[in-house]
Amino acid sequence: MKTKLKIVKIGGNLIDDAEVLATLLKDFSAIKEPKILIHGGGKIATATSKKLGIESKLVEGRRITSAEDLEVITMVYAGLLNKNIVAQLQANNCNALGLSGADANCVQANLRHKEPVDYGFVGDVNHINSAIIQQLLTAQLTPVFCAISHDGKGQLLNTNADTVTAEIAIAMSKYYEVELMYCFEKNGVLENVEDENSVIPKINTAKYEALKANQQIHQGMLPKMQNCFYALKNGVANVVIGSSKLLQSNSTLFTQLSL
Amino acid sequence: MKTKLKIVKIGGNLIDDAEVLATLLKDFSAIKEPKILIHGGGKIATATSKKLGIESKLVEGRRITSAEDLEVITMVYAGLLNKNIVAQLQANNCNALGLSGADANCVQANLRHKEPVDYGFVGDVNHINSAIIQQLLTAQLTPVFCAISHDGKGQLLNTNADTVTAEIAIAMSKYYEVELMYCFEKNGVLENVEDENSVIPKINTAKYEALKANQQIHQGMLPKMQNCFYALKNGVANVVIGSSKLLQSNSTLFTQLSL
Repeated sequence: MKTKLKIVKIGGNLIDDAEVLATLLKDFSAIKEPKILIHGGGKIATATSKKLGIESKLVEGRRITSAEDLEVITMVYAGLLNKNIVAQLQANNCNALGLSGADANCVQANLRHKEPVDYGFVGDVNHINSAIIQQLLTAQLTPVFCAISHDGKGQLLNTNADTVTAEIAIAMSKYYEVELMYCFEKNGVLENVEDENSVIPKINTAKYEALKANQQIHQGMLPKMQNCFYALKNGVANVVIGSSKLLQSNSTLFTQLSL
Repeated sequence: MKTKLKIVKIGGNLIDDAEVLATLLKDFSAIKEPKILIHGGGKIATATSKKLGIESKLVEGRRITSAEDLEVITMVYAGLLNKNIVAQLQANNCNALGLSGADANCVQANLRHKEPVDYGFVGDVNHINSAIIQQLLTAQLTPVFCAISHDGKGQLLNTNADTVTAEIAIAMSKYYEVELMYCFEKNGVLENVEDENSVIPKINTAKYEALKANQQIHQGMLPKMQNCFYALKNGVANVVIGSSKLLQSNSTLFTQLSL
């Protein structure tokens, strides 16, 4: 039987609230199993860009990562956020190790095709170095990833944090029974987006298709759920979506996904 | 007999020149022995602070690290510089792993006493986690440190890069025969600071005391040399000071220190 591994993704909105983040990191540190944390960005990157006078570029409503944006992202995600999260985890006796995808060649990606839309310095994951991540876990370390990858040729790339999380979870399933936990600003997948208590406890593929057909799933939720089912289809044992409270051992309010 | 370990410190001035840095990282990657890189800051932190409208504070001519300065240092040193250096090393087939002192609890420090001068968020190293650094080296990884430490209670601290280097070198001497290489903008310790070719090839303790007595050592050089002798007295096998060319196997222009 494989050892259990918990992989926790925390969204940017949770990082923006220092108190929520502190509690979340304390709960995460209390997890006894081997574990990995992956964090998003939050508002601080946008705020820093603004202070530096960098204008964000949108093409067809989607954000483009310019060379200047990539610099800010690297500073804020891999520097400010990642290192402060690591320092806080250390204070909670969790031996955290902060990583970008370039570190130990953990997450390699291809620059996204420039057609039909040139997204700039954005990467699509092509390889997870699962062997080295396992070695770090075996050394009792807790990897803490920001969502920056590299192309192996010296270029850092901005990468979607939910996707990186799914790819890492899939790759680590070779060695572990992986539970994937997406923590974000809502209590789970909601039946009614206005009602925080309308969490759908379980969603399987059939239910997901029905919810999609009825347009009951909030736009921002769709790619997140796609990632969840992608992970389940590729070897991840268990996937749940919920709020920061998901990490508390007595948590009951969340959405569990299954095939 | 202990395995050899090369520890290379590169100063901020070398980082500011992209071409010099690229060559240096290529030469570093070509080192076959286990190795560690430690990098300074360079002008980009000051430039970023300026762009963000943060004024640097000086007390008695010495720079103070305010909370805002620490944020910028964390962004630039641990984020922008560290990750770009790691990505470049990866491109040279060196399996680099970027670290701050908080990562894997590698470098723990105490906040410097606030008397007689309050330097702000500055740390003095109190512990190097040499066991974990050895584990990383054994896993064929090349640690790349920026000079940020942590206090173990959640606070990151700005730390002198030359001092962190000496402390890491001393701690690693338990496991390895350590050669410490300080690379900076000059060819070595100069007899005449105006003449790049006046490199003193060898300096022992007696010579160092004589140079100091004659006020022949440039002010900025004194703490660097103190670190070198401190390292030698505490188990480091060999210490050399030179330019970025120090890493080229046929380099002959440098200063070698001995007790």
